[in-house]
Amino acid sequence: MPIDLSQALGAEIPGDEVTWSEDDVILYHLGLGCGSPPTDPRELAYTYEGRLKVLPTWGVIPVHRMLGRVPEIPGLDFNPVLLLHGEQELEILKPIPTSATVTNRGRVADIFDKQKAALVVFETESKDASGETLFINRFSMFMRGEGGFGGSGGPKAGNHPPDREPDLVVETQTLPQQALIYRLSGDKNPLHADPDFAKAAGFERPILHGLCTYGIVCRAVVDHLLDGDTTRVARYKVRFRGVVLPGETIVTSMWNEGDRVFLRATNKEQETTVLSNAVMVLRE
Amino acid sequence: MPIDLSQALGAEIPGDEVTWSEDDVILYHLGLGCGSPPTDPRELAYTYEGRLKVLPTWGVIPVHRMLGRVPEIPGLDFNPVLLLHGEQELEILKPIPTSATVTNRGRVADIFDKQKAALVVFETESKDASGETLFINRFSMFMRGEGGFGGSGGPKAGNHPPDREPDLVVETQTLPQQALIYRLSGDKNPLHADPDFAKAAGFERPILHGLCTYGIVCRAVVDHLLDGDTTRVARYKVRFRGVVLPGETIVTSMWNEGDRVFLRATNKEQETTVLSNAVMVLRE
Repeated sequence: MPIDLSQALGAEIPGDEVTWSEDDVILYHLGLGCGSPPTDPRELAYTYEGRLKVLPTWGVIPVHRMLGRVPEIPGLDFNPVLLLHGEQELEILKPIPTSATVTNRGRVADIFDKQKAALVVFETESKDASGETLFINRFSMFMRGEGGFGGSGGPKAGNHPPDREPDLVVETQTLPQQALIYRLSGDKNPLHADPDFAKAAGFERPILHGLCTYGIVCRAVVDHLLDGDTTRVARYKVRFRGVVLPGETIVTSMWNEGDRVFLRATNKEQETTVLSNAVMVLRE
Repeated sequence: MPIDLSQALGAEIPGDEVTWSEDDVILYHLGLGCGSPPTDPRELAYTYEGRLKVLPTWGVIPVHRMLGRVPEIPGLDFNPVLLLHGEQELEILKPIPTSATVTNRGRVADIFDKQKAALVVFETESKDASGETLFINRFSMFMRGEGGFGGSGGPKAGNHPPDREPDLVVETQTLPQQALIYRLSGDKNPLHADPDFAKAAGFERPILHGLCTYGIVCRAVVDHLLDGDTTRVARYKVRFRGVVLPGETIVTSMWNEGDRVFLRATNKEQETTVLSNAVMVLRE
């Protein structure tokens, strides 16, 4: 019995404590392609400790190690090779400091029966030294082959952009070595580096991390719509729909409606959708 | 009395112990521009832990922190703003492991009176856990304004390439963000990141680290002349002659004469010499 709702739903992921430094934040930003041209103050704000600010999507990094303990959760038996990252949601409650120590806790927040797959939502909460919550992550993971256990199908995807031309379109070309830099922030899955492994998984060559695209799109909004103010992002949710190969170009389309920015990201070279059902909620 | 030969010559630099991991080595290689194209096995050998080897010029990195204590040396009073890296020499005695802990010792090996400057040679020795020497560095630093103390002028520069066309010429284009990546390996001098600081120091914009160029040229030789065999480099010495701005192209010319490779590096865009009097000694 691969998925046992009664055991798995609400189960805790063993927590941990994580410390980061300015260098870790800079490395993450370089992994998103920040830093070119290197004299642009907007680039240096992400890559030079003398002026450093933190992109809200940094929040996915300090819980990465903890998610490695998901296989220990009782009632949640799955094949890691068939795992897909379906959606990502991040709530940012306080501005993220350039260095900090956080305490992470996590649990299985939802399990939906998608028939061909189980959709499992892992929710993590990261508190700073004063005990206040900095950010909350929701990782929605498709466990292919594990559906049909009789649970609810879950809500339909929302967050469709309005039916008009986007307010702003920003292109970001990734570096050929983008995934090799990004993986130093923690996600060492060989899918993003090893050509043989990537071929065995059905890809032409190693692919960019979905969460790298997640960060690149966030950065495009912050810089081009929010005047570089990273603290205005209160919530950011996306669905992963397609693949970017390192070196390809991510095209971010933005629709601003009040305190919401609806988003879509496409792969320019492959003409495919990369992120859909994507929304950012702004704070004043 | 800025330079006091009797005190400074032979004086020890306080030693330390340094540990590195595969990630540190990969970050260093990415700082040299390795990893593009990302499916090339020659690139992955520098950037993916599954196949990792170590460029001999990694040897300059683990002694960087220790050199920060040079100002403590008695009899060696100088203005750090007027310091220039004149030459670099590295002897590699054993293949460098992808992770290790080394014990570093160092001393003032030579002081020459260049009239307008003092040329001070810092020699460091790094031993592995078994007590065997892995590598020896010689950093020759120009302390401008500190000459005229009455010492020897020192040897003339040698290692001129033979009077014929080079056997091989390799071009390496650097990334715009090259210095921003490279500095995460330890050398945080704002000269390589801060446009205002660079202007105050007389440069158009932040410059690439000389030791980054040193590594890039080493890599060009290893890959194009030594079939990727990093262990064949026994000794590598250069004189720093000019500046590379991140994004510019380094042209490495090589003359192979027996167990020696004479080298010259030029800046393609600026048509200037970057490294001269450069030689690599090979082991069989």
